[in-house]
Amino acid sequence: MAELSVVGGGVIGLSVAWRAAARGHRVTVHDPDPGRGASWLAGGMLAPVTEAWPGEEDVLTLGEASLRRWPDFARDLAGEGIDPGLSPHGTLVVALDSADAGNLEMLAAYLTELGREVEQLTGREARRAEPGLAASVRSGLLVPGDLAVDNRKLLHALKHACGRHGVEFRRDTVTDLETLEGDVVLAAGAWTGRLHPALADAVRPLKGEILRLRPRRGCLPPPARTVRAMVEGRPIYLVPRDDGGLVLGATQYEAGFDETVTARGVRELLEGAERVFPGIAEYELVETAAGLRAASVDTMPFIGELGEGVFAATGHHRNGLLMAPVTADAAVAWLDGRPLPDEVAAATPSRRSEERV
Amino acid sequence: MAELSVVGGGVIGLSVAWRAAARGHRVTVHDPDPGRGASWLAGGMLAPVTEAWPGEEDVLTLGEASLRRWPDFARDLAGEGIDPGLSPHGTLVVALDSADAGNLEMLAAYLTELGREVEQLTGREARRAEPGLAASVRSGLLVPGDLAVDNRKLLHALKHACGRHGVEFRRDTVTDLETLEGDVVLAAGAWTGRLHPALADAVRPLKGEILRLRPRRGCLPPPARTVRAMVEGRPIYLVPRDDGGLVLGATQYEAGFDETVTARGVRELLEGAERVFPGIAEYELVETAAGLRAASVDTMPFIGELGEGVFAATGHHRNGLLMAPVTADAAVAWLDGRPLPDEVAAATPSRRSEERV
Repeated sequence: MAELSVVGGGVIGLSVAWRAAARGHRVTVHDPDPGRGASWLAGGMLAPVTEAWPGEEDVLTLGEASLRRWPDFARDLAGEGIDPGLSPHGTLVVALDSADAGNLEMLAAYLTELGREVEQLTGREARRAEPGLAASVRSGLLVPGDLAVDNRKLLHALKHACGRHGVEFRRDTVTDLETLEGDVVLAAGAWTGRLHPALADAVRPLKGEILRLRPRRGCLPPPARTVRAMVEGRPIYLVPRDDGGLVLGATQYEAGFDETVTARGVRELLEGAERVFPGIAEYELVETAAGLRAASVDTMPFIGELGEGVFAATGHHRNGLLMAPVTADAAVAWLDGRPLPDEVAAATPSRRSEERV
Repeated sequence: MAELSVVGGGVIGLSVAWRAAARGHRVTVHDPDPGRGASWLAGGMLAPVTEAWPGEEDVLTLGEASLRRWPDFARDLAGEGIDPGLSPHGTLVVALDSADAGNLEMLAAYLTELGREVEQLTGREARRAEPGLAASVRSGLLVPGDLAVDNRKLLHALKHACGRHGVEFRRDTVTDLETLEGDVVLAAGAWTGRLHPALADAVRPLKGEILRLRPRRGCLPPPARTVRAMVEGRPIYLVPRDDGGLVLGATQYEAGFDETVTARGVRELLEGAERVFPGIAEYELVETAAGLRAASVDTMPFIGELGEGVFAATGHHRNGLLMAPVTADAAVAWLDGRPLPDEVAAATPSRRSEERV
């Protein structure tokens, strides 16, 4: 059995470590604060279809390949002792004005053509499904297959499962891969570009701010399913949690390695959320936070061998939680010397050198 | 020398305790968490003139009486070891629309008639004084005498000074004044109404939310002086701190003893502040918090004997920090058996029973 060093203890690194250790490999995770970072601040959407965009079919295909693995992944993880809280509810995208409604119809047509299960709703139908939606909601698109997971429960469950299989945690910041033992999986998120020359210009931080709220007494409860919308061109999502809380995200900025919460970000999120779900105005604001997604140049992650003994598992953009199962499968296959799953072919890091030719 | 029990360790209770102990009295402060509460969350404005309102001349007079004491109070406190951070800068009130501008002119006329020092500014002059103000600022009113103090430094300084004079702190929640030793000063803020029947309906919690921000690199610095405005009928103030930070307040709600930060409150504060000082959008949002002011039925505090051996020092509304020096002087005079300062006559608790006659 191989010796494996995983650089990064976010959802990708922990998933790889767990799956590898469960197969008997000796695994060490290097992270100054495992289970935090962008994974800790995520909304937890597992939503390849509602994230889909014409021209990004590879991302949709890979996301769906991972989503198909999610029920088993969650069940196996629960079997290790802690249930990661996979929600069975779908996602509802709503339109607030005629331009949004037009975009939603185009998205519906595109997804129907691709054979994805979607249901178009009138504003009235959308409000029947989610009674707290604003009267101004004009139409909706229900995607029953796009799910969500409680990201913090998931991280807790992964750390617990890693512990059960003897994964060692070293609270250090790796700066040189040469110092590591055995094979290496590079899952350092936004910081990955600093660790390997092949990814130096390919992975960058994409800042996101996120809020956590909770209904106060007498407040309307949160929506049952994830609700998404565009408000003045900015994406808004509301992801309910089993404990009654609500995650509200997320801004996107190119701001380098800046992790401060800005006044504008918070104001825009709250404004946008009130436009979609007015009752949120009376919710308690429990947490404001900012983190750095690992954005890749073409929105596809980098999953594949970077060089002798080094495997990339990074650049997941907004899709880290979604793509954790397929990424872990690919990393473990590589470690075992088996062929990678077909679905990650388009995520190969070698696509960059090919581009340059 | 008398034995004194002070109920409440906010700015009023600590000021009374310090001044009494410095005169040789034996003082115990009862508070589960001294130096916190509404005082900890205050903006720190010492601004009787810009808070003035026709018909509330008593509040203005009492506020000014206390403001006159502030330089000595701050100097004496600094002499105990820690400077409370009294700012020498005045307050600028700005108008954003013609209705605001009209109100500001009326306020200027009213204050001029009362003989208060104010200076009317055009929008351009206001922006020259504070370059970060929005282009939409139409006019301003500069009140050089309305100051501010760093409320957290002040609390720190007061606790330190109390310690130097042997004040004992008991971290308990008083529910029955009969259990206390010696004379009693009631300074329990919003909770005072629960402790004495004479104040049961006279003091209530008035919730306020407040934010703390800090300029990020490349941001415009905060204004030099306190800036106030009305935005859509809601008061906004920005109070700069010596350390470069900025306090943004404050909402006012009748919400009972609820101390949760609401989504609406934060959104409205940020929206309002951006209208007045647009550069704040890029500031880091460092803290969101809510507290309970002790609101009195007629906005005047209750300062005076409530009954044999019990003195009220409460109901200071938005003016607790401002009125701490005069309140402490009154409490200590009472303790010493001297006449109270003339200025607190209108704050006598007996005005309530007179009303009922």
